[in-house]
Amino acid sequence: MRQSRLFTKTLKESPSDEQALNAQLLIRAGYIHKEMAGAYMLLPLGLRVVEKIKTIVREEMDKIGGQEFITTSMQKKELWEKTGRWSDDIVDVWFKSKLKAGGEIGFAWSHEEPIANMMKNHISSYKDLPIFVYQFQNKLRNELRAKSGIMRGREFIMKDMYSFTDTKEQHDTFYESSKEAYMKVFERLGIANDTYITYAAGGAFTEFSHEFQTLCNAGEDMIYLNKEKGIAINEEILTDDVLKEMYVTKDELELVPTAEVGNIFNFGRSKAEEVGLFYNNADGKKEAVWMGSYGIGITRLMGVLVEKFSDKDGIIWPKNVAPYSVHLIAIGDTTDKANELYKKLQNNNIDTLYDDRDARPGQKFADSDLIGIPTRVVISSKSIEAGGVEIKERAKKEAQIITEEKLFTMLNK
Amino acid sequence: MRQSRLFTKTLKESPSDEQALNAQLLIRAGYIHKEMAGAYMLLPLGLRVVEKIKTIVREEMDKIGGQEFITTSMQKKELWEKTGRWSDDIVDVWFKSKLKAGGEIGFAWSHEEPIANMMKNHISSYKDLPIFVYQFQNKLRNELRAKSGIMRGREFIMKDMYSFTDTKEQHDTFYESSKEAYMKVFERLGIANDTYITYAAGGAFTEFSHEFQTLCNAGEDMIYLNKEKGIAINEEILTDDVLKEMYVTKDELELVPTAEVGNIFNFGRSKAEEVGLFYNNADGKKEAVWMGSYGIGITRLMGVLVEKFSDKDGIIWPKNVAPYSVHLIAIGDTTDKANELYKKLQNNNIDTLYDDRDARPGQKFADSDLIGIPTRVVISSKSIEAGGVEIKERAKKEAQIITEEKLFTMLNK
Repeated sequence: MRQSRLFTKTLKESPSDEQALNAQLLIRAGYIHKEMAGAYMLLPLGLRVVEKIKTIVREEMDKIGGQEFITTSMQKKELWEKTGRWSDDIVDVWFKSKLKAGGEIGFAWSHEEPIANMMKNHISSYKDLPIFVYQFQNKLRNELRAKSGIMRGREFIMKDMYSFTDTKEQHDTFYESSKEAYMKVFERLGIANDTYITYAAGGAFTEFSHEFQTLCNAGEDMIYLNKEKGIAINEEILTDDVLKEMYVTKDELELVPTAEVGNIFNFGRSKAEEVGLFYNNADGKKEAVWMGSYGIGITRLMGVLVEKFSDKDGIIWPKNVAPYSVHLIAIGDTTDKANELYKKLQNNNIDTLYDDRDARPGQKFADSDLIGIPTRVVISSKSIEAGGVEIKERAKKEAQIITEEKLFTMLNK
Repeated sequence: MRQSRLFTKTLKESPSDEQALNAQLLIRAGYIHKEMAGAYMLLPLGLRVVEKIKTIVREEMDKIGGQEFITTSMQKKELWEKTGRWSDDIVDVWFKSKLKAGGEIGFAWSHEEPIANMMKNHISSYKDLPIFVYQFQNKLRNELRAKSGIMRGREFIMKDMYSFTDTKEQHDTFYESSKEAYMKVFERLGIANDTYITYAAGGAFTEFSHEFQTLCNAGEDMIYLNKEKGIAINEEILTDDVLKEMYVTKDELELVPTAEVGNIFNFGRSKAEEVGLFYNNADGKKEAVWMGSYGIGITRLMGVLVEKFSDKDGIIWPKNVAPYSVHLIAIGDTTDKANELYKKLQNNNIDTLYDDRDARPGQKFADSDLIGIPTRVVISSKSIEAGGVEIKERAKKEAQIITEEKLFTMLNK
């Protein structure tokens, strides 16, 4: 992509109405646009990052048998009344609206009810199970406060997966494999070492749920952590009983700020009982389906990555999710050479942002640091004289001049 | 994909609450699930078709310089008040809701206002223009009636593109190139010969807008058409003056039912003036930006394709958008052979739905016709004896038995 054509412009100053570092940097670099508190447009660079995160998540969900689909934002009142979750006293984040044709609808803050209801058309026998489905969906939540940039949105993209199984063993097996798949996602995003499976409040049918909490100063959660023992407990549930159960004392735990990047939730059979989702077992007996739900906050992850991988000059994207792999910068009177190199990069399928703008070198370097593409390649009369191009990793200080041949060897690795 | 694992089941009977053929077939074949009138989940097969349509549209929009991004569903009251379109008397399809934090928001039925407003951050000089952006977005419209299946949704996916240009020439040039790009999309979808650029009602600043109307008995529009002259006029605007202007008489025109699959709309400079989107021209003078908007109904297109390409047994997908290219069906005791062939198809990157279910041949053939994958490949003891596999196009009656080698030659073409 030629940067002269990219419509977004960088900003020198942070927007005054934005306290969160993630949103400040993402707005300044042109990744997102704040429509209102908690709702951000994804501009071309931002959409590319989100699509790359989605691709990683999609691949790992497919590996454990997930089938992708997508639900609607509009939801039926009757369905949520059945499970007692239509009331604003129970669920305090509903957006609701009146239908012109009569009646009231809700906008999707979550999807267990409609998905379980839809499954009634497709599940009748134990032979139809297990089923694992997932979607990337826009969630709408009427949050009272939205102050953490894209880490807590009123509108945000979530990957939510649902499991439908017939035995406790099948259910538990998938629950465990989803944990592993989640850790693989966080590994590929470069945050696995800072991400802990954390005990959190359960529901009516399980003692605990599991959250994936990533160490992050801007996170909204606090967890008690023992890194060596790998024990993490959400502060909300820390009691003497819980400590006892985990064979750990409070002194051994450190209270640290984290961001919840994922969660998995065990419904047992209760949700299916409420919704009326039954199957016939091998003996012809009607049983409620076992259900679990498994979320990953996609846009929140983008925010967490920025919070963790940035410095005073801008973002430092992990390679797997960077909007482009290479930021090619032409300095001075090198247009022909730079155009040629850009073409070669394209022919080698190396996705490149090419700063071909008529701008000062200082501006180009500052923008490059702000945007945070992992590898910067500068072509200037100086680099040409020295026999090639200057290459510098965004995460490192030192640059070196190498031949074009060496450049492609390095990039194609 | 092994069909035994695909969670959707086919239905013999059409759902009683669905009059539209497109929704009847898409529901019966397991492509979509009706959440409520005008709002459908896209199940795995349906999502695949929609993604293929999106890919075609994306490629053509990129070719004419489009940059993809995505806006929010939540929209600000103040912005729409500015252009006089917040009022339910003016725009009668708003869904609105109250913010807990105070105030009211709208849900996106259209996006000109927020996009033009966002562009104020990125457009200041004529040097920043032209800009062409597009998105695939969920539109929410509070329609009084929703009776045409997925051809008129209360929630639906639309590709909307917006042009921002500084001169009338640049504006007109892009307007024309968007027409060509649209016709290429419809060509790739197999409906170009039945799709007419149709004169329709304009706005305050242009006499006409242009709709892309596809001949379709289930369509909600009626146009006056002269195929030979290539003249198409929406019945809403047919007057003696219009006839005169088009050098055509009413006798030469035929009134036909159509579905509006796309539209392009010329805002001139009026929208930018309303929103306050200005740039400095080469002389340093402040001018309003020229704007156009360009829509394609993605989920509606899926419906139109089903209406046009189906028979009494089910859907007949055009190859470019079929959820899979090949439907492999194993009959009788041929599992090993079929598994082997399935693996070969995968290794050749031929996306295949493999009916490995333990079901009667009649059921498998009926489901295959209903689902409508373009090429059916049957492996049975009969076909093996005759030296290979049976191949049949969904659109044709005759089947033939060919060798596996010939099969791959045909499929790789």
